[in-house]
Amino acid sequence: MIVVMKTDADPDDVHTVKSKISDMKLEVYESIGLNYHLIGIVGDTSKVDAESFTGIQSVKKVIHVQEPYKKASRLFHPEDSVISVGDKTIGGNKLAIIAGPCSVESREQIIHVAEKVKEAGAGFLRGGAFKPRTSPYSFQGLKEEGLELLKYAREKTGLPIVVELMSQDKLDLYERDVDIIQIGARNMQNFELLKAVGQTRKPILLKRGLSATIEELLMAAEYIMAGGNENIILCERGIRTFENYTRNTLDLSAIPAIKKSSHLPVIVDPSHASGIWWMVEPLAKAAVAVGADGIMVEVHNDPANALCDGSQSIKPEKFKHLVDSIREIARIQNREI
Amino acid sequence: MIVVMKTDADPDDVHTVKSKISDMKLEVYESIGLNYHLIGIVGDTSKVDAESFTGIQSVKKVIHVQEPYKKASRLFHPEDSVISVGDKTIGGNKLAIIAGPCSVESREQIIHVAEKVKEAGAGFLRGGAFKPRTSPYSFQGLKEEGLELLKYAREKTGLPIVVELMSQDKLDLYERDVDIIQIGARNMQNFELLKAVGQTRKPILLKRGLSATIEELLMAAEYIMAGGNENIILCERGIRTFENYTRNTLDLSAIPAIKKSSHLPVIVDPSHASGIWWMVEPLAKAAVAVGADGIMVEVHNDPANALCDGSQSIKPEKFKHLVDSIREIARIQNREI
Amino acid sequence: MIVVMKTDADPDDVHTVKSKISDMKLEVYESIGLNYHLIGIVGDTSKVDAESFTGIQSVKKVIHVQEPYKKASRLFHPEDSVISVGDKTIGGNKLAIIAGPCSVESREQIIHVAEKVKEAGAGFLRGGAFKPRTSPYSFQGLKEEGLELLKYAREKTGLPIVVELMSQDKLDLYERDVDIIQIGARNMQNFELLKAVGQTRKPILLKRGLSATIEELLMAAEYIMAGGNENIILCERGIRTFENYTRNTLDLSAIPAIKKSSHLPVIVDPSHASGIWWMVEPLAKAAVAVGADGIMVEVHNDPANALCDGSQSIKPEKFKHLVDSIREIARIQNREI
Amino acid sequence: MIVVMKTDADPDDVHTVKSKISDMKLEVYESIGLNYHLIGIVGDTSKVDAESFTGIQSVKKVIHVQEPYKKASRLFHPEDSVISVGDKTIGGNKLAIIAGPCSVESREQIIHVAEKVKEAGAGFLRGGAFKPRTSPYSFQGLKEEGLELLKYAREKTGLPIVVELMSQDKLDLYERDVDIIQIGARNMQNFELLKAVGQTRKPILLKRGLSATIEELLMAAEYIMAGGNENIILCERGIRTFENYTRNTLDLSAIPAIKKSSHLPVIVDPSHASGIWWMVEPLAKAAVAVGADGIMVEVHNDPANALCDGSQSIKPEKFKHLVDSIREIARIQNREI
Repeated sequence: MIVVMKTDADPDDVHTVKSKISDMKLEVYESIGLNYHLIGIVGDTSKVDAESFTGIQSVKKVIHVQEPYKKASRLFHPEDSVISVGDKTIGGNKLAIIAGPCSVESREQIIHVAEKVKEAGAGFLRGGAFKPRTSPYSFQGLKEEGLELLKYAREKTGLPIVVELMSQDKLDLYERDVDIIQIGARNMQNFELLKAVGQTRKPILLKRGLSATIEELLMAAEYIMAGGNENIILCERGIRTFENYTRNTLDLSAIPAIKKSSHLPVIVDPSHASGIWWMVEPLAKAAVAVGADGIMVEVHNDPANALCDGSQSIKPEKFKHLVDSIREIARIQNREI
Repeated sequence: MIVVMKTDADPDDVHTVKSKISDMKLEVYESIGLNYHLIGIVGDTSKVDAESFTGIQSVKKVIHVQEPYKKASRLFHPEDSVISVGDKTIGGNKLAIIAGPCSVESREQIIHVAEKVKEAGAGFLRGGAFKPRTSPYSFQGLKEEGLELLKYAREKTGLPIVVELMSQDKLDLYERDVDIIQIGARNMQNFELLKAVGQTRKPILLKRGLSATIEELLMAAEYIMAGGNENIILCERGIRTFENYTRNTLDLSAIPAIKKSSHLPVIVDPSHASGIWWMVEPLAKAAVAVGADGIMVEVHNDPANALCDGSQSIKPEKFKHLVDSIREIARIQNREI
Repeated sequence: MIVVMKTDADPDDVHTVKSKISDMKLEVYESIGLNYHLIGIVGDTSKVDAESFTGIQSVKKVIHVQEPYKKASRLFHPEDSVISVGDKTIGGNKLAIIAGPCSVESREQIIHVAEKVKEAGAGFLRGGAFKPRTSPYSFQGLKEEGLELLKYAREKTGLPIVVELMSQDKLDLYERDVDIIQIGARNMQNFELLKAVGQTRKPILLKRGLSATIEELLMAAEYIMAGGNENIILCERGIRTFENYTRNTLDLSAIPAIKKSSHLPVIVDPSHASGIWWMVEPLAKAAVAVGADGIMVEVHNDPANALCDGSQSIKPEKFKHLVDSIREIARIQNREI
Repeated sequence: MIVVMKTDADPDDVHTVKSKISDMKLEVYESIGLNYHLIGIVGDTSKVDAESFTGIQSVKKVIHVQEPYKKASRLFHPEDSVISVGDKTIGGNKLAIIAGPCSVESREQIIHVAEKVKEAGAGFLRGGAFKPRTSPYSFQGLKEEGLELLKYAREKTGLPIVVELMSQDKLDLYERDVDIIQIGARNMQNFELLKAVGQTRKPILLKRGLSATIEELLMAAEYIMAGGNENIILCERGIRTFENYTRNTLDLSAIPAIKKSSHLPVIVDPSHASGIWWMVEPLAKAAVAVGADGIMVEVHNDPANALCDGSQSIKPEKFKHLVDSIREIARIQNREI
């Protein structure tokens, strides 16, 4: 970390900066020239808060040389992490294929979809029980009943279930009943929820926030890991930009970026990213080609009557086509489904 | 609401659209031309979910004519709402001036700042007890102890206190101890938290999310209001854009936009918007000139040693200068401080 | 096109709207309900300017049903366009591989790179002669001399050359000497330049502007086509967002979106999108997997000493690896290199 | 400028970095620690191109300590610049009020508007002759005839005229006939046009690009100044963000930011920023309150029938009200109209 001082820095401010660094048991080096005045910090600065310095008026800016996360960093954990989910894994050679409806709507629906996606090649079943909706007047999910139906579908198909947790008061329930706990994009910086799931050892599927940088996503993972839970799967699901042809803009560059910075597995959700059913397959193929560890896709038996996200859901037969086409790309990548 | 069909729409899909509308007890009108095929919905569509239609393949898009919120809408509540906080109000002729430190750090600090901001003209004291921080390694607030210190500062100065709530498990505590409950930007779409505070009757200060549209901010307010709590104060605090000179980009156009669309009062937080202490005063002046109902400003006795947000905090003497300069602009606006 | 009137619209304004529509020789249909008042326009509205109506105070908004472009639209030209460049084509079954340095720097450099990229499988040579640089103090290109060197490299290798045109006063020169005229991202809405190249019949490689929507890109193509030049190749090269890990955010969703809306071929430039050399190969693979008609890649013999864009340039041997890996993906897509 | 090396940097790369610095006649200082390896550059780095180093593989990033512009920087020119336009000035104590229609449409229109805005207090007349339009089918301006009408309006009222230049081939004409040459947002990085106007001594009104950072705006000014023309007035006119209530998002924080970084005057265009006529007055007030040196406003005698930008144009009587209300705010700022 480098503290860039103003060239006409007040000596008292310089002293304050240096004292703060010493107080953190770190070392100082200083470099002064015609047009610059730098105070470098020597040692492990991954936990140093830049804001400790930015309030000092002679400080121009603070520059990170090291990343501000540690447990999520590849620097301290060079091998890829592989997350175990029962007898399956996410992050290794095998691509994770997660599929299912936006919301669980009925026993028939979820069983039908679960059987179909399993048949097509999915390894995990997703389904919403408690739903985060922009409008209070939209369908909010079947809640506990939805969770029961998902468990039933798991029993029938053997597919582990991925379900979004919206509030820590349901954590015990999820810890008992769910295989992978999803933290949704809108809760990526719900720090109390992150801390709560950090106390479990359940695999967490952490979705990138709509306007979160890659670094912020890794900091959110760090929150969970700092609590002791290192079983994290990251998920790119589109960011908010000025373009409105698609609901969000899928940021596939984030995949190699995350792979470079972190050892955690990362998957892609082309359904939420685009919001458009006919884009799901080409984007899923691109996701595998760019190096993602898996995909998560919304599949519904009857999108026209889906209670949510019908516009981005594909039918089971289209999903089968999708899996077949990514299988070929996976092979080129030396990966399998 | 208008459902725009593809010109070669499948008759079954057209039928599905019409049936859904009838099922909602709303009326249909249809208009077909050379290059268009529209199905309009007649009646109160403020609670109709556009997603009911977008999953149907022959549907091109769904267009809102009416806003998707109701209780927050000026259409159904033409007069400005004035929110009572004890014997004070927010939203009327008098500008709300909320000031205080990012975090409560000690008894001396909070009492000192509270007395100084009161003296300068502030009507409300803000202060963080439980802090949402990007890094798990940053100072997380004094928590319950911070709340006690804020109560003590209130007792000493008579200023009502504004404190951020991060999790519904602390709601009882806040309902008892706090005058205005703040929902932070990162929790603006934490729907469980919104539902929870909708069950109280406490005034809620709802901050706009970093990447929330004005409509989404009003939908978040609608969530709280749908629960029965109509005591909402909105807060513009900057949105995330490509510009990184400032931490966020303050969107002052949002103020007249919200005033047009909603009856709720709206204030501006120039400290979080810019992240730069020397921008706070000019932006506060602009906020009053554009028509905001108040401002919220971070004030710290010793920004260089603040445990958070030092770079955007101003000292009490600068805050006094700020209040004096907005007082003059307020007078031109026929408002007072 | 639908003109949405305010529900309390002034009858004079309604009359004005209808008169304007009649003046354009188009027909009106009107629909009035409890909460809406719509005036639809019947006929070909692709050339109707929405601004004709938005200045009328009782108009709430104007909604496009039809796209505002015509010659670029797939609606009026259902088959894919294939652009001829000498005896080669872009847009058909064969992927276009365009490669070369940011700037031509010397005879040796350009000949060396041209021979190497040809050997690796490139079909076209790119190279900058006149360079658009953010700083006036940065290298501005070898200009006319650079163009001569590119012509020489073409002579030696047979590769058609793609060169960016920055100003219409060089158009005659480019028309004579260049095979594909590139319009850069920063000039995508330099309308005078678009009009000028619309007067030639040279193939135009039109890059998407940093903050241009897909619709605006197609409107820029429409400008050129309206002048009579229909030989356009579109290029996605990243958009500006809040994320700054990469220089821009590559928007691969734009590829299926453009394929749906337009018949024009579209390629991807992963080098400018990411600005990072080690991301070029995975992004190029994703581009082919998502359905792009080709890629454009910066290749330099000595990136460390490149006069521009060294950080995103790859060496010839890495380019060879890249071509080999996209060849396999191309095969799955039933395309060839 | 600091070159941050990877901790495992290749010694050859370190050597390359140092050699490049020496070749620029600048000095090197090096600092190596456990987790960092920095190579600082001593001397005037305002003209050093960061890309000289980013292509070297062991370079992690390059950090600017000094701004990359010089002539536009306040560092080298501490006093505010005041630009002379005939016997008027922009940038001093007096606020510049520029008003007029989007396009000149007829002799009657421009004379009428010119007289009305002068009467209301405007000091400059704006009007479009050659118009940059998103669609090739929209009205493109009266061109040379429009310029003649503007000259006639100037003769009648004495107001200097501000007209947008779209292409360097009209520069001689503009140099002779126009008082302030406007460079539009879409041409802010049309570097050939910037170089061309750098050769004149006419005042240039340089509008910020839709997705240009503040630094890029100042770099565009630097382009013109590097050519010898230091008569530049900057203009904030809204940036592109995800919010679409307004056409663009007015970034008023840019005003104090520019005032801090540069000596050039900066004005605000609330009409193009919002695209909404009823927002123009509150935003103009906010612009003056935040410290802008003037405003530019679209005024039209008959917005409902304006050939462009009707939705954001205000009538002369509303403009008079606007000027009266900003006059009061100007007084508080110790400025006059």
